[in-house]
Amino acid sequence: MPQLLRIDSSVQGEQSVSRALTARAAERWSAVHPDGAIVHRDLGDHPLPHLTNATGVARMTDPATHTAEQAESYTLTHELVAEVLAANTILIGMPLYNFGPPSSLKAWVDLLVAPGLSIDPTTMTGLLSGREVIVLAARGGGYGPGTPREGWDHAEAWLSHALSQVGLEPRFITAELTLADTNPHLSEFKHLAAESLESAHRQIDALWANVPA
Amino acid sequence: MPQLLRIDSSVQGEQSVSRALTARAAERWSAVHPDGAIVHRDLGDHPLPHLTNATGVARMTDPATHTAEQAESYTLTHELVAEVLAANTILIGMPLYNFGPPSSLKAWVDLLVAPGLSIDPTTMTGLLSGREVIVLAARGGGYGPGTPREGWDHAEAWLSHALSQVGLEPRFITAELTLADTNPHLSEFKHLAAESLESAHRQIDALWANVPA
Repeated sequence: MPQLLRIDSSVQGEQSVSRALTARAAERWSAVHPDGAIVHRDLGDHPLPHLTNATGVARMTDPATHTAEQAESYTLTHELVAEVLAANTILIGMPLYNFGPPSSLKAWVDLLVAPGLSIDPTTMTGLLSGREVIVLAARGGGYGPGTPREGWDHAEAWLSHALSQVGLEPRFITAELTLADTNPHLSEFKHLAAESLESAHRQIDALWANVPA
Repeated sequence: MPQLLRIDSSVQGEQSVSRALTARAAERWSAVHPDGAIVHRDLGDHPLPHLTNATGVARMTDPATHTAEQAESYTLTHELVAEVLAANTILIGMPLYNFGPPSSLKAWVDLLVAPGLSIDPTTMTGLLSGREVIVLAARGGGYGPGTPREGWDHAEAWLSHALSQVGLEPRFITAELTLADTNPHLSEFKHLAAESLESAHRQIDALWANVPA
């Protein structure tokens, strides 16, 4: 049975653009995979714990030496890795907050990266490869070539680099200028925002077009 | 009375390179400011909460409309802004984890950025300017020009962009290749790691050299 893992990280609840995009993609996936199952992890409702001094090195030390807090943290890593391994497709909703990913998505990555579980400790190759990762990204402003804030999106390139460690290669579908409708400074870009959203929708609706019925 | 705000975000406790650097810088600051006071916020021991669906929009909405959870989150923003405003100098210890900042440091930034408190809502200029910010950064590998992972440090440029919103301009003192002593793949770079750490120490020891006694 095909399985989809949908991860959301926006903190804007039902107002979230990225969450609407992951919902649309999940719906599209279900239409193509009527026998499929969806696991939904919404970090906006249930954020994962930050690494701390008490838990941080759990992924770099022999489990036999773990304290109770490290063991608990490592169990969570086991759970997150298993969730990814069980999925054929992973959708990640990623808004841009203060030019970076939501802290809860960073915490998910920091918990996921674990030599011995998600990385081969000898060869340092990723153990989670062989599944597709589609990131539904949303950003309030414009960050394209030639814009004043070109290069200020520190989330997309980061996520690709971080996930490459575990063998995952995300593909991005991005809606930008999402604040154009509400931010007066961006009102002249409303048409670009609408185009960007329509383009994201078209890309989502074309996903899995070659999956046999 | 001069005040120093020291923020740590490593999760490696006493093994942390960045924490040792902030400790050295705080000691240096105290030597130059014998009448000064230090406030220490260690995010590795006491991480700040992630923004969530229940709290996230507290910084974008009228406080009069806040739910109890939003009000609590906004009180924390007040506290963090006041801590920065009270400081003449801010030290930030920032290790690089999975090519980004610790999630707890991202959470600190996401809580700090608040139109009306840290940003003028009309002009969108930062309200926290006029104080010095020194980032003591540590990264396990090498990320300089010409290295295979040039451009994979997504923490330093991100922090500068994020803090520019509130009027803060961080200066970086970075020790790199900190894993060279323990990671066999990096053992050939031990001398570069030692040079990098010595350079960081020299830069720290030269801080506030022009402050009158």
